[in-house]
Amino acid sequence: MDNKLQAYIDRLNDLDFKGMYGGDFFLTWEKSDDELAAVFTVADALRHLRQGNISTKIFDSGLGISLFRDNSTRTRFSFASACNLLGLQVQDLDEGKSQIAHGETVRETANMISFMADVIGIRDDMYIGKGNQYMRAVADAVADGHRQGVLAQRPTLVNLQCDIDHPTQCMADMLHIIHYFGGVENLKGKKVAMTWAYSPSYGKPLSVPQGVVGLFTRFGMNVVLAHPEGYEIMPEVEEIAKKNAAATGGSFSKTNSMAEAFKDADVVYPKSWAPFAAMEKRTKLYQQGDKAGIDALEKELLKQNAEHKDWACTEEMMKLTRDGKALYMHCLPADITGLSCPEGEVDNSVFDRYIVPLYKEASFKPYIIAAMIFLAQVKDPVRAIMDMDASDAERKLF
Amino acid sequence: MDNKLQAYIDRLNDLDFKGMYGGDFFLTWEKSDDELAAVFTVADALRHLRQGNISTKIFDSGLGISLFRDNSTRTRFSFASACNLLGLQVQDLDEGKSQIAHGETVRETANMISFMADVIGIRDDMYIGKGNQYMRAVADAVADGHRQGVLAQRPTLVNLQCDIDHPTQCMADMLHIIHYFGGVENLKGKKVAMTWAYSPSYGKPLSVPQGVVGLFTRFGMNVVLAHPEGYEIMPEVEEIAKKNAAATGGSFSKTNSMAEAFKDADVVYPKSWAPFAAMEKRTKLYQQGDKAGIDALEKELLKQNAEHKDWACTEEMMKLTRDGKALYMHCLPADITGLSCPEGEVDNSVFDRYIVPLYKEASFKPYIIAAMIFLAQVKDPVRAIMDMDASDAERKLF
Amino acid sequence: MDNKLQAYIDRLNDLDFKGMYGGDFFLTWEKSDDELAAVFTVADALRHLRQGNISTKIFDSGLGISLFRDNSTRTRFSFASACNLLGLQVQDLDEGKSQIAHGETVRETANMISFMADVIGIRDDMYIGKGNQYMRAVADAVADGHRQGVLAQRPTLVNLQCDIDHPTQCMADMLHIIHYFGGVENLKGKKVAMTWAYSPSYGKPLSVPQGVVGLFTRFGMNVVLAHPEGYEIMPEVEEIAKKNAAATGGSFSKTNSMAEAFKDADVVYPKSWAPFAAMEKRTKLYQQGDKAGIDALEKELLKQNAEHKDWACTEEMMKLTRDGKALYMHCLPADITGLSCPEGEVDNSVFDRYIVPLYKEASFKPYIIAAMIFLAQVKDPVRAIMDMDASDAERKLF
Repeated sequence: MDNKLQAYIDRLNDLDFKGMYGGDFFLTWEKSDDELAAVFTVADALRHLRQGNISTKIFDSGLGISLFRDNSTRTRFSFASACNLLGLQVQDLDEGKSQIAHGETVRETANMISFMADVIGIRDDMYIGKGNQYMRAVADAVADGHRQGVLAQRPTLVNLQCDIDHPTQCMADMLHIIHYFGGVENLKGKKVAMTWAYSPSYGKPLSVPQGVVGLFTRFGMNVVLAHPEGYEIMPEVEEIAKKNAAATGGSFSKTNSMAEAFKDADVVYPKSWAPFAAMEKRTKLYQQGDKAGIDALEKELLKQNAEHKDWACTEEMMKLTRDGKALYMHCLPADITGLSCPEGEVDNSVFDRYIVPLYKEASFKPYIIAAMIFLAQVKDPVRAIMDMDASDAERKLF
Repeated sequence: MDNKLQAYIDRLNDLDFKGMYGGDFFLTWEKSDDELAAVFTVADALRHLRQGNISTKIFDSGLGISLFRDNSTRTRFSFASACNLLGLQVQDLDEGKSQIAHGETVRETANMISFMADVIGIRDDMYIGKGNQYMRAVADAVADGHRQGVLAQRPTLVNLQCDIDHPTQCMADMLHIIHYFGGVENLKGKKVAMTWAYSPSYGKPLSVPQGVVGLFTRFGMNVVLAHPEGYEIMPEVEEIAKKNAAATGGSFSKTNSMAEAFKDADVVYPKSWAPFAAMEKRTKLYQQGDKAGIDALEKELLKQNAEHKDWACTEEMMKLTRDGKALYMHCLPADITGLSCPEGEVDNSVFDRYIVPLYKEASFKPYIIAAMIFLAQVKDPVRAIMDMDASDAERKLF
Repeated sequence: MDNKLQAYIDRLNDLDFKGMYGGDFFLTWEKSDDELAAVFTVADALRHLRQGNISTKIFDSGLGISLFRDNSTRTRFSFASACNLLGLQVQDLDEGKSQIAHGETVRETANMISFMADVIGIRDDMYIGKGNQYMRAVADAVADGHRQGVLAQRPTLVNLQCDIDHPTQCMADMLHIIHYFGGVENLKGKKVAMTWAYSPSYGKPLSVPQGVVGLFTRFGMNVVLAHPEGYEIMPEVEEIAKKNAAATGGSFSKTNSMAEAFKDADVVYPKSWAPFAAMEKRTKLYQQGDKAGIDALEKELLKQNAEHKDWACTEEMMKLTRDGKALYMHCLPADITGLSCPEGEVDNSVFDRYIVPLYKEASFKPYIIAAMIFLAQVKDPVRAIMDMDASDAERKLF
């Protein structure tokens, strides 16, 4: 075993993550610090093994079910990659091709698709108060199906983005930061600006800013949430951010000034999202089937957005950050001024300078998802990693 | 080897199923009693192995092609699960994404998709006289392609529902019954009510009632087919049911009274279907492209259905069954009164009481499909099962 | 090792194909004669191993990404088959289900889908000057991503049809010819007629005729390109065909007479395509979003096509070929007179007589694609083939 892998093993041996076995991954703030550290460490270990051409399959067969209720490229491919890395075959539940419309309940569908499922990944981020609830209903249904002898195994549910959190994204973001700053021990006191930014489109989910403030506040960092008035996030998540900050010696603050947030920031995450209250309203309009109301709301929100075109990650704004060199982050795709739209979230020159770090940020996601599955499915992860390393199973023939 | 697996092996050693090797699975009544028993036994054995975490892959690589000409959730996932269980990767033939429209014949398409195919699963249940025919044309084409040296292997065709039979469903249903009553030897004399039930939708396939009376009559049971006048099934299938019953000491009878069918029944299977004659008419209208005719037929059929809303599996109806406790069956999804529709096939309280058995019923389908493939693809199934059991290949790492 | 495989190994040992390792496959004329010979030989060897039930997996896990910007059955399944043969799982990038529309660049998308990708197969044949360019942009992006540490591996790009060439089709066509005539050494002096043929549809890509004249002229054959005036192909490709012919002692000529091309031909490839100039015009109209212009162009082209209904591969035309028995080729699906259309590319009786050869022609494609991947991904292909043969890994259990 090389030193790097030995260090991961040593780290895991110091952590208590037994509670993850047989569980799911809904929200980062439901997991202990040790559990999150275990996800980061297993993600790094799996990446290290794969780069060393060692097979990391823990499944000889089995399905990973994906259900995307919103379009997706990177999360879809990250989930497929994670499943493939562990030996699972992906099967999409495409609701358009299914009979779900005519009379199936969540409980029934969940069981019907899970006879060979070891993992279920769901993206459902469109409606406030719905996505996370739906995931829990699916997880409850399959846990019950397993108890009742319907399913031979209990599939792990992984939240691939809901109305509240986007844990696979934010954990990948955080692992990127850990690597960038050379270790979790270097994060204390760093300033992070999670800020709203203007976008010509409407209705982007709140799960990223919520996930970021709910997670980044756990590492002793000074997290500032900045947005124009009216773009508040869910108050429950703000409460979590406050508690986290208090517990780790960091801070969580809010401002309506992008410049204030960017001032001396070590990390900036400028990104558009829809106002929480408007999303709630939209959820109700959809429930009522009020097409005219939805159209009116969209117009209103686009108009509201347009009042805040100065919320953009420009070169001038970047100059305010620590030495003008804050780490720029984005979950992608970004609305890039002059490239993908006339006026957007970020200047093309800023975005372009950070392309490699941005792609690296994204590259952690498959491993984060795989680590979440690994820790939920493997009873003794340390031994499993050691066995993989010791085996002569190659990932590919060279 | 544990006692349970030994019992399956012993059972298989008593059966003659050599004729299945290299074959297809179109209709249950084309198979001998021994062959059906072999499917049940291999399905049980595969499930037992998987639950014991033993890998059941007989393919190292290879494709399972699926072609669904009607929406599907459970059959799609059951087929994918069966393929995965045996080591095949599923590749959907999505006719919307293909060039089939412009000038390809069945023979050509069948060969073009089958260069690496070990299995082809087709669902084509919409048009009377078409689905089963289409499957046979595909099977003939690939058998010929194999003979001519175009294909390196001869893919097995599995009927995932046609206009005549739904063998993977009805075999799963029957395996459920066998387990429920503690063995095939306990089925003699049991009364089964396969009855029509009211649904607010129209045009459901006849393959389930046909498949049920064509299969269940082979086990010495008293099978009653009940429906309102005008909802006749294919007369050829009724003939088969009669012959089966005569040969096994059971009976096959018909009635236009749901209550009569339910009286003292041990098993009830209340389910909506379209009248055979109307389906034939619809097939012709589609061929003629007569949109107005189709719409008129739909209205007429919905009106006809609505005259029989009393054909519902209510609590009162259930009380008529043996000790009020008949096994309630359904292929799912059901039209549940007060849950998925105002008036449907079954009372919510009845359905709800049988949810776990219903899910178990469905859970046999992936193993039934896998067993059909196994028996068609493996020359010595007994030895293969023994080898799997003896090997140390685990399904997943624990 | 059997004699046949030994012959493949001997052949490979005589060839220089080191340059293919780590590369891509865009156009046949970018590859040396030895490299093309290596593709043919590896394709034959893989087929031989698979037919001998030997596993040819070089990947334990990994993804093959497919991106089809045009409908496809056979190429889609050929790519899936090739990936499966080598151990890769296919993941489709369905642009309809992705977020690509809103603001992603090619560079970004290419990296985002490739974290676990070993192969990317693209079909993009609709717009002159676009498809091949797009593939190169994707290949450059992932090569750069690999250099920058974003991707752990550099995926191989395989051109599954572009605006210029259709290398997997034409290489499969050529391997068919090699087998048909009993070896590449027998091709010298054979006459090939690559001719336009009438089709009632419009806008078929030029990649097949271009690929054929660009490839077949490398084997010392006399290649005649025939089409009505106005159906010219890209002049750059004609230049390549001329150079090839000059270098191998064959010839490349053009004619506006189908009969002249068919006269004494050993091989005929009658197939419809759109005029190059019209395709260029169409590309511009699409860019301008000129719907009326596109409709007008379509009408004009269909009218132009209809003036050449005599360009059909009739029985009379076939009689002109060598002994009336030229090998008839087509990439399929063909427009068959009296079968798939009233008047088309080929008489039903001609097509029908060549069905088995046509299917065999198509059957080489999965192996050609697999060989392209194999040579780009495996450092020592000879040793890899020998190891596979020596191992006891079976493709399936018999």
